[in-house]
Amino acid sequence: MKALVTTVPFGAEDQTPLKILEKGGVEYLVNPLNKKLTEEELMELVSDVDIIIAGTEPITRNVLARANKLKLISRVGIGLDSVDLLEARKRNVKVCYTPDAPAPAVAELTIGLMISLLRRVQISNLRMHRQQWHRYFGRRLSECTVGVIGAGRIGVGVIKHLSGFGCKILVNDIAPENSACESDAIEWQDKESIYRQADIITFHLPLTQDTKHLVTKKELEMMRHDAVVINTSRGGIIVESDLFDVMSSGHINGAAIDVFEQEPYTGPLSKLENCLLTAHMGSMSVDCRARMEIEATQEAVRFFSGEPLIREVPEEEYIVQEKSL
Amino acid sequence: MKALVTTVPFGAEDQTPLKILEKGGVEYLVNPLNKKLTEEELMELVSDVDIIIAGTEPITRNVLARANKLKLISRVGIGLDSVDLLEARKRNVKVCYTPDAPAPAVAELTIGLMISLLRRVQISNLRMHRQQWHRYFGRRLSECTVGVIGAGRIGVGVIKHLSGFGCKILVNDIAPENSACESDAIEWQDKESIYRQADIITFHLPLTQDTKHLVTKKELEMMRHDAVVINTSRGGIIVESDLFDVMSSGHINGAAIDVFEQEPYTGPLSKLENCLLTAHMGSMSVDCRARMEIEATQEAVRFFSGEPLIREVPEEEYIVQEKSL
Repeated sequence: MKALVTTVPFGAEDQTPLKILEKGGVEYLVNPLNKKLTEEELMELVSDVDIIIAGTEPITRNVLARANKLKLISRVGIGLDSVDLLEARKRNVKVCYTPDAPAPAVAELTIGLMISLLRRVQISNLRMHRQQWHRYFGRRLSECTVGVIGAGRIGVGVIKHLSGFGCKILVNDIAPENSACESDAIEWQDKESIYRQADIITFHLPLTQDTKHLVTKKELEMMRHDAVVINTSRGGIIVESDLFDVMSSGHINGAAIDVFEQEPYTGPLSKLENCLLTAHMGSMSVDCRARMEIEATQEAVRFFSGEPLIREVPEEEYIVQEKSL
Repeated sequence: MKALVTTVPFGAEDQTPLKILEKGGVEYLVNPLNKKLTEEELMELVSDVDIIIAGTEPITRNVLARANKLKLISRVGIGLDSVDLLEARKRNVKVCYTPDAPAPAVAELTIGLMISLLRRVQISNLRMHRQQWHRYFGRRLSECTVGVIGAGRIGVGVIKHLSGFGCKILVNDIAPENSACESDAIEWQDKESIYRQADIITFHLPLTQDTKHLVTKKELEMMRHDAVVINTSRGGIIVESDLFDVMSSGHINGAAIDVFEQEPYTGPLSKLENCLLTAHMGSMSVDCRARMEIEATQEAVRFFSGEPLIREVPEEEYIVQEKSL
């Protein structure tokens, strides 16, 4: 059996995933372009592979049509927006993922981004590196109302970290009854109320037909003039050009964006000093990234050895994609 | 009575301090140079003032000799390293300060700086604004050992915020028995052990003869190769040129420096990408800064009205300065 590892980086800080594949007897090729692959690039590489150990590159109907031998997609990460699940099922390709591994790293980064935005840390740092001294005013997290849109694994982690600050937390989720959110400090509210009230609005959603372009000019303009917005979930949740326009008009105090519709991102948000940009680094702590790669390669080896998979994508995820047809 | 307000900014986001002085009938002049004054600049301004509402500019023996009418120094902030307390006492000048007001803002900023350093947020942001995409690896706070040097108001605040992350915390203070530090997650240790073990080392100390140049090349080289260092207390605690040399040699993964021996700072640390620099913004949240200015101006008005002061500098602070003679 042959595996194609498309995710990058892979085995970079911790070589365990490579050893797992070798010890498991799985022959593998690592992404030769060392960047997120396009649909076309991926199509060129898949014709003879049995397993894809996948990042967020598009595993579309076209890719699957070309991958005649494919039997397993093992996603390094949680989001499934990049995988055509229904087409995979039709072609008898199993799909597994690592839904718990990235959450702690994303939740922590989100807290850091909140404080950086509130205190204009990145603006002061840019200026100080140009020998410009200005003491910026900021706000304290403890004094803020934080809006958490999406209370899954990551949103709940964010809420847990906020417990050491004592801020007011407003939460929205499509299924609050399923959330592991137990803090007394939270209040469930509808999204619009959160947009209108919160000082900080942070998104922790999967990208689906329902969440795609959830935040347009309209929603951004509902927000407080001095609100800050954070997206560490998926590009496509916030319409990037609308965010650029609204921020250019002076509305909204700052944004921290880690995820983009097109990655690598080189778009106009990089012209805005109050837009804090990072390169899809939410899950990129050494420990979480290693756990993601280890879980995904272990699953590949299990499949290769004929053992049952333990992190197969649940039925709900297929239903979400079915609904969006 | 005439007051000179030397601290900058003053009454910038919240005008209450100006109103307090006006309502209290205190005539005042605000720092005409709108920057931190040097000893010489201050000497030019003090000859006819009764009260100084002071920032961190040097109120030295020379300044006090020129300030013949001076009766009160009301410090906006906590540090007293800039005031010659013994000379003030000799000349019958009372000194008061605002020791509680800045702490919450400094403690929060410190947490933000920790996460930014661990995840290389500021480096990615700099690069993204130049259209360069690179997914940096980082570490998680929850996985780190955090060394807190100084467990006063600010250090204790930092420890409280860390409670939502579950990291291991090592603490040092000259008087642990006086600290309000009650967390079960902490371990008291000597400074050298902390330097050798901690992933993150953060300083929350007053600048005194005992803490000046506490951290030299020797202490920096004791630290782990991948340690990160944070100073939001006072410039002068870490020898800046030693930090520059050690970081230039590749030892230490990153530093976040908010305070400098000479402010405004334009020195060589600004050449290091992994040195996150901010412009003495620790206390600069709108709420804490307002509280500092309000408390300091209320004290001036009390003095003017012949009421007793409520935040006079305690005897220990005089003893600290006496010891260093």
